[in-house]
Amino acid sequence: MEQLTTSLDVLFILLGAILVLFMHAGFAFLEVGTVQHKNQVNALVKIMSDLGVSTVAYFFVGYGIAYGVFFGFNMDGQLTQAMTEKSGYELVKFFFLMTFAAAIPAIVSGGIAERARFYPILAATFLTVAFIYPLFEGISWNGNFGLQAWLEDRFGVGFHDFAGSIVVHGVGGWIALAAMLVIGSRNNRYAKDGSIRHVYPPSSIPFLALGSWILAVGWFGFNVMSAQAIEGIQGLVAMNSLMAMVGGILAATFISDKDPGFVHNGPLAGLVAICAGSDIVSPLGALVIGLVAGALFVKAFTWTQKNLKIDDVLGVWPLHGLCGIWGAIAAGIFGSTALGGLGGVSLMSQLVGILAGVGIAFIGGYLVYALVNMFAPIRMNEEEQYLGADLTFHKIHANPPKEDFNR
Amino acid sequence: MEQLTTSLDVLFILLGAILVLFMHAGFAFLEVGTVQHKNQVNALVKIMSDLGVSTVAYFFVGYGIAYGVFFGFNMDGQLTQAMTEKSGYELVKFFFLMTFAAAIPAIVSGGIAERARFYPILAATFLTVAFIYPLFEGISWNGNFGLQAWLEDRFGVGFHDFAGSIVVHGVGGWIALAAMLVIGSRNNRYAKDGSIRHVYPPSSIPFLALGSWILAVGWFGFNVMSAQAIEGIQGLVAMNSLMAMVGGILAATFISDKDPGFVHNGPLAGLVAICAGSDIVSPLGALVIGLVAGALFVKAFTWTQKNLKIDDVLGVWPLHGLCGIWGAIAAGIFGSTALGGLGGVSLMSQLVGILAGVGIAFIGGYLVYALVNMFAPIRMNEEEQYLGADLTFHKIHANPPKEDFNR
Amino acid sequence: MEQLTTSLDVLFILLGAILVLFMHAGFAFLEVGTVQHKNQVNALVKIMSDLGVSTVAYFFVGYGIAYGVFFGFNMDGQLTQAMTEKSGYELVKFFFLMTFAAAIPAIVSGGIAERARFYPILAATFLTVAFIYPLFEGISWNGNFGLQAWLEDRFGVGFHDFAGSIVVHGVGGWIALAAMLVIGSRNNRYAKDGSIRHVYPPSSIPFLALGSWILAVGWFGFNVMSAQAIEGIQGLVAMNSLMAMVGGILAATFISDKDPGFVHNGPLAGLVAICAGSDIVSPLGALVIGLVAGALFVKAFTWTQKNLKIDDVLGVWPLHGLCGIWGAIAAGIFGSTALGGLGGVSLMSQLVGILAGVGIAFIGGYLVYALVNMFAPIRMNEEEQYLGADLTFHKIHANPPKEDFNR
Repeated sequence: MEQLTTSLDVLFILLGAILVLFMHAGFAFLEVGTVQHKNQVNALVKIMSDLGVSTVAYFFVGYGIAYGVFFGFNMDGQLTQAMTEKSGYELVKFFFLMTFAAAIPAIVSGGIAERARFYPILAATFLTVAFIYPLFEGISWNGNFGLQAWLEDRFGVGFHDFAGSIVVHGVGGWIALAAMLVIGSRNNRYAKDGSIRHVYPPSSIPFLALGSWILAVGWFGFNVMSAQAIEGIQGLVAMNSLMAMVGGILAATFISDKDPGFVHNGPLAGLVAICAGSDIVSPLGALVIGLVAGALFVKAFTWTQKNLKIDDVLGVWPLHGLCGIWGAIAAGIFGSTALGGLGGVSLMSQLVGILAGVGIAFIGGYLVYALVNMFAPIRMNEEEQYLGADLTFHKIHANPPKEDFNR
Repeated sequence: MEQLTTSLDVLFILLGAILVLFMHAGFAFLEVGTVQHKNQVNALVKIMSDLGVSTVAYFFVGYGIAYGVFFGFNMDGQLTQAMTEKSGYELVKFFFLMTFAAAIPAIVSGGIAERARFYPILAATFLTVAFIYPLFEGISWNGNFGLQAWLEDRFGVGFHDFAGSIVVHGVGGWIALAAMLVIGSRNNRYAKDGSIRHVYPPSSIPFLALGSWILAVGWFGFNVMSAQAIEGIQGLVAMNSLMAMVGGILAATFISDKDPGFVHNGPLAGLVAICAGSDIVSPLGALVIGLVAGALFVKAFTWTQKNLKIDDVLGVWPLHGLCGIWGAIAAGIFGSTALGGLGGVSLMSQLVGILAGVGIAFIGGYLVYALVNMFAPIRMNEEEQYLGADLTFHKIHANPPKEDFNR
Repeated sequence: MEQLTTSLDVLFILLGAILVLFMHAGFAFLEVGTVQHKNQVNALVKIMSDLGVSTVAYFFVGYGIAYGVFFGFNMDGQLTQAMTEKSGYELVKFFFLMTFAAAIPAIVSGGIAERARFYPILAATFLTVAFIYPLFEGISWNGNFGLQAWLEDRFGVGFHDFAGSIVVHGVGGWIALAAMLVIGSRNNRYAKDGSIRHVYPPSSIPFLALGSWILAVGWFGFNVMSAQAIEGIQGLVAMNSLMAMVGGILAATFISDKDPGFVHNGPLAGLVAICAGSDIVSPLGALVIGLVAGALFVKAFTWTQKNLKIDDVLGVWPLHGLCGIWGAIAAGIFGSTALGGLGGVSLMSQLVGILAGVGIAFIGGYLVYALVNMFAPIRMNEEEQYLGADLTFHKIHANPPKEDFNR
């Protein structure tokens, strides 16, 4: 019986890991579809290589910073034997959490698309996944540095972020903002007077949509399996994820008047926002959270690009950074029993947690990208941007130049 | 132990829900690949927005009609608390069954593609998922209105439709037929003498194939998880789904002489047909059911378009409507012990069930689409159809006009 | 309790079957993206039809050869009843192992792409899945013909191939080599002096990448579920699969200098190589195995095409054939406790196993393809190759000829 429960814990968290691993294909295709055709290949290679570097960074450094477990350079049969105890639960837990960590560069990638050099970005990926992301992950989810204890002491309960509205998405979005500030806008994106000069329509709505679908489906592993044990599974988490996703779809559909880019990012906005409180809000609360997130994304996307002059190709700062903040706040609001939630949440703790997470992400992200930029300039020059990242770095087009699809 | 079983029931049905949610991406890409390039975006946006509207319709109305559970406008902490009992099983059950309900507009969408206005369709989606689909769902799967009791009384056993050959696919296919009759054929589809005037080849066989694969893979969640409890899992259901899928592939490959559209719809035909009897027929019976379904689809697709002048873009009426009927009949035939089945099925009950399901779907569907059409004409005018739904409704192409893929 | 464990075994292996079934979509898109545009449809239809034929071949013949269970032409209710015992575990086990068997023609397909006739290939698929693949599968995994007993006797332990580096991938890769030798190179591929004359860039990097992602994600079902029982689940297998995949990504990224084709085949190389020893090597050992596999693939791909003049379109011989061999050897090396493994493996047994597997595959594959070629010439003639397999066999393009994507 105990053996069976252990086996099931392994299966449970493994299914989560597989689903979130699949989400990385979603990140890839969301970017492929949104960027210009001449940058499609780069999007794909970046996400795949980032995954490789992230795993290594998290394996050797990051996981240890967050949870005190350093897998290190072990080639010792007895250690491997020890890892197989409890059906290898600790190993799949690493796998699951690694897929979260690797989401950070995947989020950043969409913001700085079409103008970033390949290897410098890979170096930045290593540093963020090894040092920045696990810092706040450990603070939030492992009680590191005593912030959670202090919040519990001060406000009765700690910072509540069940599946990572801030820990993953907020942190990713704000690191992306820092990276964008370091790297600057694409050439020709803004005119001298600050107005938007060039608008590049998505190269492929179908690929964009494919990415969105894969992300949305995989997200149920992201959220539900965050319970990390089979007996902690809770249908409410799945239901709330569904309702927030649907809220995001509906808000985006109606507010953007069926713009395909927004309609396919809407569900993601809802899902980002529901991560924090999916275990404590009511389904109707989740629907409202999703509606607000969808609306927030549509409005903030345009506003940040036009008014703040932030050249955020996929809108990752509004999507992950702002909807993440909204999600953590919303958990504090709709998590209260007065509004249909299960309680055990404090708006003040949420605000402190948000501030800490966003602060660490933005400052840490800025340091990493500025540091890398000092040693290896990240920005592609004008000619390279004109040529496209595909030809510049990968010496190939997404489709062959003489392939005319017409013969 | 009881807790563990409950947790596992939640996991089991959640996996089904995730797989069937993924099928909606399959519906989207099957349509994207089959329609003309100028209608690809519309296909994608429709499926995503339909999912949003369907969830809301089923949450507030439909689920209550079928199962007597109205989630309603509750923002009450204690009610949410109650929902978390049994690990939230009732909530994931809703999620799972919602993904079935949302298949209805996804099926219809493929039939009326390339000529339907966006918002009127969305209104019709709401009405069908809120009222029409759950009506027969409740009759079949919840014993509503006493039809099942009467059949048991009269013929010994009730209408057997394990995973929805009729309840989902038949109903979807016949609502689609009704919608097509209300909306009419695409302009230029038929000449005045009734002959087919324009044949539009699929815009993308790869996207069509992608849709087919996603649907086929997700279908194993559709069928196997219809047991709705882990201890009810039955390998026979998976095996039969496989064999029927394979029967559909083989029949379509050979009868259509390897036409890619048919080869990728063949497995779906087999899977539609096996839903009803997957728990009671033998693997060899399933293979035969799939072979017949594949052949039926290939033949009926051409015949309905040519002879009946029904402009069914994806062939959803033959695929879901006719293969659904075949599946329910086949359950009555191959489910009998004489033909290798497990018995407990009556051909008469099957016929009555089919008649009831198809009748409700066709009449209900006709009323819904006619009603919507009265207030908000559904049909795109000639110029809009010529321009394409993408530019007309979404003001964008699937790929940018100056994107030449050739630079 | 026993019932629950049985149910969970069925669920466990079913999830594996679903994931590996999905991998077939991965095989399809890897080939679609890699071949020329004029052969995309053929790639898709081949993989789907091959799946149909493989299932039937394995159901009626192959599974019996490997495991002694012939499902045969049974239409007997009592037999079906018997199949449902143990929740139908034997049936899902067939399903799971069938998805492995069907990988053989999917692997071969990528090697002989762009020049093979449709129906002859389908016949060869039947023969390999019915007779060749199950021969060595039975020897390795079912103790047939006493090879494993002899190895145990002679070297202390048998041939260790947990998830099929040799049994599936090696065999697939070497059958593919035999098929390529029978069929010959594409026209214009090599000049008279033996130099490479035409290089065809991949028609679609996004589709190639999509295939790679689906394969990589599904592979976790391939490896983890090879335990075939829930209580045999082991996190180490998942972790090692991850580390080897990542090793493959990193090696391919750096050695090929970010070539997209290699970056997306690198993870697959790592995954092929880890199959054999994923249950016994350490995570660090797995990383090394993956790094070597990624490097091996990049180097061997170019070398075999240039120096050996083997026209292997997707590089399936280096990928599955050579990385498979490396994997089985690596299990013998890194599986030893001295190098961090769990022990219980003999390098000699590994070498004998590799030799037996590769020998059966190459000779058996050669016989099958030569035999088929005698009765129905496999090779497309010059004109057909120029026209492309899509128009030749399927009378359609992947995208319509007048579809200009530009309007």
